[in-house]
This record gives sequence, structure tokens and C-alpha cells, in this order.
Amino acid sequence: MSSFNYTIAIDAMGGESSPKKIIEGISLFLEEDKEIYFNIFGKKDLIIKEIDKYKNISTENCKIINCETQIEDKNSVRDAIKVGKESSMWKAIERVKNKESDLIISSGNTGALLVISKLLIKMIDGVDKPAIAGLWPNFQGVSVVLDLGANIEFNEKNYVEFSKIGAELYRSIFEKKDPRVSLLNIGSEEIKGHEELKSAFRTLNANKNNFIFKGYIEGNHIKDGDVDVIITDGFSGNIALKTAEGTVNYMTTEIKKIFSSSLFGKICYLFSLPLFKKIKKTLDPRKYNGGIFLGLNAPVIKSHGSADSFAFFYSIKLSAKILRGGLVKRIKSNFENG
Amino acid sequence: MSSFNYTIAIDAMGGESSPKKIIEGISLFLEEDKEIYFNIFGKKDLIIKEIDKYKNISTENCKIINCETQIEDKNSVRDAIKVGKESSMWKAIERVKNKESDLIISSGNTGALLVISKLLIKMIDGVDKPAIAGLWPNFQGVSVVLDLGANIEFNEKNYVEFSKIGAELYRSIFEKKDPRVSLLNIGSEEIKGHEELKSAFRTLNANKNNFIFKGYIEGNHIKDGDVDVIITDGFSGNIALKTAEGTVNYMTTEIKKIFSSSLFGKICYLFSLPLFKKIKKTLDPRKYNGGIFLGLNAPVIKSHGSADSFAFFYSIKLSAKILRGGLVKRIKSNFENG
Repeated sequence: MSSFNYTIAIDAMGGESSPKKIIEGISLFLEEDKEIYFNIFGKKDLIIKEIDKYKNISTENCKIINCETQIEDKNSVRDAIKVGKESSMWKAIERVKNKESDLIISSGNTGALLVISKLLIKMIDGVDKPAIAGLWPNFQGVSVVLDLGANIEFNEKNYVEFSKIGAELYRSIFEKKDPRVSLLNIGSEEIKGHEELKSAFRTLNANKNNFIFKGYIEGNHIKDGDVDVIITDGFSGNIALKTAEGTVNYMTTEIKKIFSSSLFGKICYLFSLPLFKKIKKTLDPRKYNGGIFLGLNAPVIKSHGSADSFAFFYSIKLSAKILRGGLVKRIKSNFENG
Repeated sequence: MSSFNYTIAIDAMGGESSPKKIIEGISLFLEEDKEIYFNIFGKKDLIIKEIDKYKNISTENCKIINCETQIEDKNSVRDAIKVGKESSMWKAIERVKNKESDLIISSGNTGALLVISKLLIKMIDGVDKPAIAGLWPNFQGVSVVLDLGANIEFNEKNYVEFSKIGAELYRSIFEKKDPRVSLLNIGSEEIKGHEELKSAFRTLNANKNNFIFKGYIEGNHIKDGDVDVIITDGFSGNIALKTAEGTVNYMTTEIKKIFSSSLFGKICYLFSLPLFKKIKKTLDPRKYNGGIFLGLNAPVIKSHGSADSFAFFYSIKLSAKILRGGLVKRIKSNFENG
């Protein structure tokens, strides 16, 4: 197996249409990248049935580890910890803990994934809390936004720590030397915002950072792409992300309604089909699938529960980038020196 | 002047392209509603020059009050209070304080408008803080969301108070007997969110409310229209609103780019023009222009600084609805009994 750079542990049972979409996602990934080895956790018979559909998945590039149970979305985190030790999610995380895999991806219960990862993989020394980061498209490319919901209470230290961690994430994915980092706020003036945010602003402004601190950013400017890393507390970040998702869905649905509610509309749609395909491709949210748990001793990736195989494929691509970019090592170097 | 139901005070000097857009907005409004009288505050010569362009504005339906100074967007709230006493904004608010107008609209400095309104018009007895509410389109119509930025810190009492106030706002605009009210949160389960929010949830659940309490709502479900009133703290609310605005702008721009970057695209666009016009009309954000300051002894409406005449016209329409719906009286009745 010397041709493999990295091993990814995959919880094949979480989310909708699993393990079908998971295996299809792996197959799509293997079409373009053969240097990752997979450890696949879940019901062996179901997984083998899916793997048999694809020529490019075999015992040469994956190993199936049978797990009879799985953590459901409806399970509380407490229950998940209590009764989940034999589940596909737990076993996959354990594999990373034991250094037999470099990263884990799951489409399952977010809360359980976060808590079990913290329990087994543990926080990097010096990092206070884990954060969930996500990719956010903008006019110039993609930025990363964190925290998207791991922590609803934030203090000054969290903002400063997550600025460092977020900058390393951006660096490892996009290979940019000096990422530009901003704090999400409700105004661009220094006097706006609550005390924790304002004191984080002052600290980041005074610090010699290994990124470019760009001050505050407002929600309507994330799209501009003038900032690479956007830091916010988990409450506001989660609300911003979900509101943006809802807005995309609202607009898409209203536009579709107008093009499908008359014969003329349907003709226009067919006539413009190549353009609609291009729009769909440009705005496709599946390309940004994958919540990245940061601050742990190994990367943990949460794929959206409702993600399809194409979206899952993108979360594997993201995982490979993160591994090749040396994310965890980069983050650690900030806290050894600091 | 017995044919007029209400008098609206207008600060004609705030925002971009004022007073031009303001006067044009008033003229558009008078095309369809002749029962409102206007007190227009600002530089008299500039205002008269604009009024002369329209046949339907005259001394019969408006009075101009000359104000030589104006509060600029760049002014701090402190400066605005100190030196702004002769400004168009201050004078217009004062008019409402003196009960010579029923409501004030301004496109100017939001912070100054809020603070001067609090100072002169004062809070309704029993209401702790003012809130800024806005209209939010959804699949079934329009909902109202508050707070959009007046208060960045929230306690349990604020959530409960704003639920009552928001329900009255919805009732006065949309004439619905039992509005459905939800708290914006990062999950729909009872255990999610911070302590203030959770205790507000418990209180609202236990209370006998004069609205239907629907529990928590997540950002991606605002669009569904299953809830009429969405309550959130001013920090998250402002971020949600601006992020939604940014997302609409991002999508619109990307779609335009694709239709305008080739000859084929331009032909498709021309061919489908009636549909694009319909889309533009359906998604037109100008129809939702107007931040409504709530909790004061008179309604104060903030029109977006960059709003055009059409958007300003909509904020006057909204103001007329609020006055006819008896908003302030409705809110007061909640706090007299409570």
C-alpha cells in the first residue's frame, strides 16, 4: 500500500441514503485521485452490495470494518456516548485516535460527532474549544467561515484563537501565504459590537499575526471576497449560514416557479438550457459541502446529512486537500510557539 | 384638511440622492393614497425645486419646514445630539413628539435616528428597549423579523416583550388575528441555544399569549412562511439580514454574468425578457424597504440610505398601514394590562 499518501476513515452509515451515496462518492473521488486509502465503517453486507457496483473500489484501496449499530440523528449526544461505542461513527473516530486513519468523515449526528471526536481525538494542547468551519463562495473564489455552531458563547480568547486556526485552514486548503482575516460584526466602525468582540479587535490589531487582520466585516460583504477568513461566534455563524441557505433556496424556487408556470416559460427554459446548466454549476452548494471541525488532534469532517453522492465526493476532495496541506501540524505550530 | 387621516413627518435630507428620491417617493404614494398629509423637513429651496416636478404635491397635501442643517451618516450619535438640534431629522422627530405628526420617516443616520427618537418621543411605559423590525419575504407572503440591530445584548425579558410587540406589528400591518411567533435559534430542539433564549422559550410556552407561540425556528426555515413573526437578538438579526442581502446580491450578479457573457446568453435574455421582468418584480427588495423602530410612543421608520424613490414609496405605504392598523395603541394595550 505504499502508493497511498493518506488514509481516511469513513462512517458510511450517517445521513440520508447511506451507505449508497457514500460509496458512490468514494467512487467519484477515486476517478480523479488514487492516492487516498479508505477505511469504511458500517454494515458490511450493505457496503459490499454498493461497492460491487463500481469497478474502481476494491480491497486494494479500501477496507471495510463491519459495525452492526449506528448513531441516529434523533439520538441525544448523551445516548450516543452511552450506547454508541460499537457504532460506525465511534469506530471510525477511534481509528483516527489510534492513528490508523488520518481523518474521519461522517454524514451523521453533528453533536455526537463533535463530542465523541473531542473525547477520543482530544483537543490540541493550548486550544480552548473546537470550531466548525465551512467554505463560503464569493465573487473572487471561496472564503472560510467559522464558527458555524460548535460554541454559542464566545470570549475574546476564542476570537483570537479561531483567527489563527482559521488562517491555517485557509492556508492549508488554498496555499495562500497571508490570508486576510476579519471578525463578523454589525458595523465596520470600531465602536460597534459587544465587548468580547471589541477587545478581540484590539488584540488582533495590536498583535503581530501571521495573517493580515482586516478588522470587521458585515454579513453583506462576505460575498465580496476581499476577506479569506471570517470569524464569528457559533450562534451568529450558524444563523448566517442557515439564513444564506434559506435565501438561496427561496430565490431558486421563485425563479423555477416563474419559468415553469407557463408554456412560454418552459420554452424559454429549454432554449436557455445551457445557461441554466451553467448557473446550476456555478451556484451548486454541493461544492461547498463539509463542515470542518478544527482544534482537534486530527481533522474531522462533517458532511451534510442530506448531501448526495456528488456532495459527499466534494467533502472527500476537501479532506484530501486538508491532509495534503498539513492542517493539524500548521495549527499545532501556532500553539507551541504561542 | 379634514380629508386627511394622518400626518407623516418626513426627513427629506438623509441618505443618497435626497431630497430628489424622497419627493418622487411621496408623489408615487399620492398617486394611490390621498389621505395622508406630509410635513417635509429640509432645505426648502431644494425641496421646492423637486416638488415643482410633480402635479400631485402642493400646499394642499404638504407643508415644507425649512431646516438649514442635516445629520450626516458619518456623524457620531454623540455629535448628532450635540449639534443636530436644528437638523431636518431632529425637527421631524420633534414634530412627532409635539403630536403635530403621527409618524416619522428618515433615510438618514440609523444610530442618530434611534437615539434622538428615544430622547424626544420616549419609550412606551413598561417597554424596556426599542427594537428594529423589518419585513422578510417568504413562500407564503411576508413575515416580520426583529430585532435587526437596536440591541446587541438580549435577556429573557427582551425576547418575551419583543414577541408581544412583534405580534402587534404583524397584526397592525396584515390584519391577522393570531400571528404565529417563533424565536430564532440554531436548532429546533428545546435544549439548543443559550440560557436567555431557553428561559424565554419556557416563559412563552407557559404564558397565555395573545399570539400563537411556535417555539424555535432556524435560519433556513424563515423562507417557509410557517411563522409570521421571528424574534432574535439585534446582533444575530442584523447578521442574518445582511447575510441574506449579500446572498441575494451574489446570486443575482452571478446569474446576470452568465446571461451577459455571450451573444447566445444575451439572445436568451431578450427572448425571456417578460420572465426576467417577473422575477425582478417578485424578488424586488425595494418592496420590503423600511426598518420599523418599535416600543416608542410613535412609529419611527428608517428607510434604507441607498433606497431609491420606489423603495421610499414603499416605506411610506408601510407607514400608512402601520398608522391605520393602530400599532402604537395596540402595543400600549399589552403593557397597560401586563
